[in-house]
Amino acid sequence: MVSRVELGDFTPDLDVYLGLAAYLQLALFESLGRASSIAPSTRAKALTGLVATSTLERHKALLVEIERAGKDASDVMQPHTDVIDDFQHRTGGGDWHETMLATFVGAGLLNDVFSRLAAGLPADYRERVVAALEWNAATDEAEIVAELSLAIGADPKLASRLALWGRRLVGDTLLVARAAISASHESADDERLEPVFTELIAAHTRRMDSLGLTA
Amino acid sequence: MVSRVELGDFTPDLDVYLGLAAYLQLALFESLGRASSIAPSTRAKALTGLVATSTLERHKALLVEIERAGKDASDVMQPHTDVIDDFQHRTGGGDWHETMLATFVGAGLLNDVFSRLAAGLPADYRERVVAALEWNAATDEAEIVAELSLAIGADPKLASRLALWGRRLVGDTLLVARAAISASHESADDERLEPVFTELIAAHTRRMDSLGLTA
Repeated sequence: MVSRVELGDFTPDLDVYLGLAAYLQLALFESLGRASSIAPSTRAKALTGLVATSTLERHKALLVEIERAGKDASDVMQPHTDVIDDFQHRTGGGDWHETMLATFVGAGLLNDVFSRLAAGLPADYRERVVAALEWNAATDEAEIVAELSLAIGADPKLASRLALWGRRLVGDTLLVARAAISASHESADDERLEPVFTELIAAHTRRMDSLGLTA
Repeated sequence: MVSRVELGDFTPDLDVYLGLAAYLQLALFESLGRASSIAPSTRAKALTGLVATSTLERHKALLVEIERAGKDASDVMQPHTDVIDDFQHRTGGGDWHETMLATFVGAGLLNDVFSRLAAGLPADYRERVVAALEWNAATDEAEIVAELSLAIGADPKLASRLALWGRRLVGDTLLVARAAISASHESADDERLEPVFTELIAAHTRRMDSLGLTA
């Protein structure tokens, strides 16, 4: 097991961090809304609703922290709309399965990044922010894996399409991770960050493995 | 003030009621997801996210009641997908303002109907279901009214477009109300129901008035 590289040195200012994290959850909710409207079954739609609920509860918990910091939610989210909207358009997915894979592997990877970046937040925010980000994440991931695995098992073509989609997702997702890290005052040169990205990609590979897909 | 007509005689079976109410919240969430992606500002988007959060929290609370009743959520929602999906397509709205008006007046009217129908639910479910339906509704409505009123005040063309849209919404919404009432074992003839519909339309008119729009 590689030692976990700390990202605490690269934590952006509190309001930058919170604005980015809160707006990301809002963008994920939009993708999940679209996924729900094209879900292949009522069961899939119900699952989408549950995952969206957690996403919005994370968003809401982050808004509470923004308010605690004395800032306006729209103001702190505004500077990040371009990078996140672009991410959302690229990774929203063409059908229900692609969107759910994006939620599992893309949002999963970004949650890893934000949880690590939280190490550099003021001590009185850190724990609450990590709790907000991780709220219900393990349960949601397990449910997505169960549903996607069923679909993949029943359709080999879907498996190869999702494997390809997963590879594309990781690139787009790492761009957002890099944007979050680059928002700090620390010089984020590639050499210092390489071990972090190696670990993030390893975690991505484990997620793809859990679906029986090649990363 | 007209005396409040009870709808308790027209309450459908518990699982029919819960399936319909839970699926309706899921459909509202989908419309709000689409609205969020076309919101005219980050502030409007943030408001959409808050309203969607409440919608999904209502949905989740209704799922808890479905589970308590020993039923499967997808099974009890399934029979209602056609009527609600059709409602959602007709009332989803063409832009952010239309969707938010639909959430305010359409969902508001249906919440009135479901709250009244709850009178005929088993006593141990009634209070929790009404609490689920009303969760955060007053706060959300106030915020939607504030934001829409600003936009309407700034744009007379928007005011007349939304007045027209509100008139169309009420018809489509009453169809869903009627479907909910017709799902009971009681014969829902027009004469018995007329006072109910009169009151519902009066409440609709008050909502439109609060926006300065003619119903």
